[in-house]
Amino acid sequence: MASTRYALFTATLCSGLGLLLASPLWAWDGVVEKQTFEMDSFTTHGGETIPNVTVGWEAYGELNDARDNVILITHFFSGTSHAAGRYEVDGQPTGYWDAIIGPGKPLDTDEYYIISSDTLVNLNAKDPNVTTTGPASINPDTGEPWGMDFPVVTIRDFVEVQRELLESQGIESLHAVMGASMGALQAIEWASAYPDRVERLISVIGGGVADPWLLATLSAWAAPIRLDANWNEGNYYNGEPPTDGLKEALKLVTLNANHWQWANETFNRDWADEARDPAQDINARYAIEQTLDDIAAARAATSDANHLLYLVRANQTFMAGHGESLEEGLAAIEAPTLMLYSENDLVFAPEGVRGTAELIESDGTDVTLETLDGNRGHLDGVVSINQASDTLRAFLQ
Amino acid sequence: MASTRYALFTATLCSGLGLLLASPLWAWDGVVEKQTFEMDSFTTHGGETIPNVTVGWEAYGELNDARDNVILITHFFSGTSHAAGRYEVDGQPTGYWDAIIGPGKPLDTDEYYIISSDTLVNLNAKDPNVTTTGPASINPDTGEPWGMDFPVVTIRDFVEVQRELLESQGIESLHAVMGASMGALQAIEWASAYPDRVERLISVIGGGVADPWLLATLSAWAAPIRLDANWNEGNYYNGEPPTDGLKEALKLVTLNANHWQWANETFNRDWADEARDPAQDINARYAIEQTLDDIAAARAATSDANHLLYLVRANQTFMAGHGESLEEGLAAIEAPTLMLYSENDLVFAPEGVRGTAELIESDGTDVTLETLDGNRGHLDGVVSINQASDTLRAFLQ
Repeated sequence: MASTRYALFTATLCSGLGLLLASPLWAWDGVVEKQTFEMDSFTTHGGETIPNVTVGWEAYGELNDARDNVILITHFFSGTSHAAGRYEVDGQPTGYWDAIIGPGKPLDTDEYYIISSDTLVNLNAKDPNVTTTGPASINPDTGEPWGMDFPVVTIRDFVEVQRELLESQGIESLHAVMGASMGALQAIEWASAYPDRVERLISVIGGGVADPWLLATLSAWAAPIRLDANWNEGNYYNGEPPTDGLKEALKLVTLNANHWQWANETFNRDWADEARDPAQDINARYAIEQTLDDIAAARAATSDANHLLYLVRANQTFMAGHGESLEEGLAAIEAPTLMLYSENDLVFAPEGVRGTAELIESDGTDVTLETLDGNRGHLDGVVSINQASDTLRAFLQ
Repeated sequence: MASTRYALFTATLCSGLGLLLASPLWAWDGVVEKQTFEMDSFTTHGGETIPNVTVGWEAYGELNDARDNVILITHFFSGTSHAAGRYEVDGQPTGYWDAIIGPGKPLDTDEYYIISSDTLVNLNAKDPNVTTTGPASINPDTGEPWGMDFPVVTIRDFVEVQRELLESQGIESLHAVMGASMGALQAIEWASAYPDRVERLISVIGGGVADPWLLATLSAWAAPIRLDANWNEGNYYNGEPPTDGLKEALKLVTLNANHWQWANETFNRDWADEARDPAQDINARYAIEQTLDDIAAARAATSDANHLLYLVRANQTFMAGHGESLEEGLAAIEAPTLMLYSENDLVFAPEGVRGTAELIESDGTDVTLETLDGNRGHLDGVVSINQASDTLRAFLQ
């Protein structure tokens, strides 16, 4: 026992010494401070001007003097800028990519300044840690929430707000831009619109265009909100919000973003209430229905229904480069590209990911395609990202 | 030219002679007569009694004297008994499996008596060619439509009604039972519940149990109806029906029953209205959204929303044998089994189909598994069935 203890002690000591020797003087402690970025006005790519635009942002690691160690993280449909760390000193890490962002991790906060911002029309408008501008925001011209009068915004607009945020910190170029799903669309748009500012592109579970399948899938997500009588053409801010419709929309998002392997390995055919047999009671339910409902209800509590409709539209309008042709939009990308995807993705078809890679590669740009395994389908790009750690580490160097 | 014409004439003559020699005295002309089957009362497997049950049925070919040439066709979720032929002498064939049912076809009407009936709670309650009993039917005890007071019915109940129909024609055994999707569930249930009456089982794009993924998918189909304020807990027969909710439900059915290959090969990113750019107008739409809406609206016109909810439940409750264990339910099947399925099926996971085959095979029952190709996913079991023609012909002999 004594020798085992000694060995353990030695290992701990050496590991500690190694960490001490390898670490910079400053090391991120994992606690995140949410900050906000304000613009007096923002003009969309479509030509509409929105006054008083504010978005939240957070960063991990330190910006170096040359301001050339920046990695921008762009978030997914239901996500926020909270990619890593925790908000409270004693809290557990709650950032969605905490597995790969931190001291010594592939996106190493000892080396990189990693920054992430809430998009416009962010879904989680009622989350106290989220700051966004969208239909739920007050239109300063009327003093009332914008509702459906808010201009349509696109992935390109999300990118332009990020560009302004970065420029406000004196950042002109990105060591890398990385995002999952809707975040991949933003990352691709960055590399296409600003090829001289993006040194590396990492697209996770996303592709170069919203294909017809995605147009229809997104349309299905929007439908339950418009069906809810409380939606009232988007004018619900002085009354009851369309919570039932929002919940059903979020249930579809959860279901589509997963895969039958997850459903069939996680759930069974149990009833929601063991006293109510679904074969005897038309209003009884199965446990999986109740669980999906509970997840949706929790998410709905911090979400805004109109914001979901605007996010659906932002994704639907996406074609890399936002120009006449997808081929041109993707050929404009010069950054070496890493594309991580799942063969079980039910949102971004694997064929579309591979087709995007081919178009980026068409003029000689280097593209690496790698699959993510797991039973979550699309969501493996978020929850199973750690399996790409070695690939990410190598790609970023 | 003359010799070519002569050769063509000879070929036509010989082909005509061959047909004449091979054909029986009676040959089905492809015109279908819809008939109805009535029961004074029907008691469900769950113990509820429903008075005045009526279902529609149609048949192709002639019942032989031994009454042993019967093939029962069981229909899918949104389907009807109209599996083959046409309703009018001069009409085009409109039966969904017309490609494989008819004189000289794999399900040869010169040889077999092929019969198909509308299920209980059939979706197409307002279709003049459909006769069914369900929530939209009058409850003779009240003189009002049943609404949600109609008892829950299961796949086993569909089978029992079919058994009564067949027995009314003196039919005690089936040369084969064949169905797609929900029809496969009925076919499997027939073979499990009545192993001594089923000589061959053909399950197309279906499996032995509603797995958790299917429970959740079906739940999503039901949700838009319950969201529609006109649904009114199922009491809408004296007012406006929940047409918007029904349309959204049918859109989800269409989308889930297809595959991204179909969407991406059939549609593009065109706008529904070329004067309304979705990037400028939050209420503008893409053409694929409009097309899916139009399809759904056409189907909704002949459908009943409560019937959809009851069909969802009938499918959710399905486990072969309706007993304690799936293993027992599938092991009870003795009939040689042919399972046709699609690797791109987003409703019945291919793993579930293969798992069903293994459980049927476990006690030595012969199972043949064959895949269907195409870009329709689940729906290839309906629209692409002709590619299995040789397999079907051989299996039925």
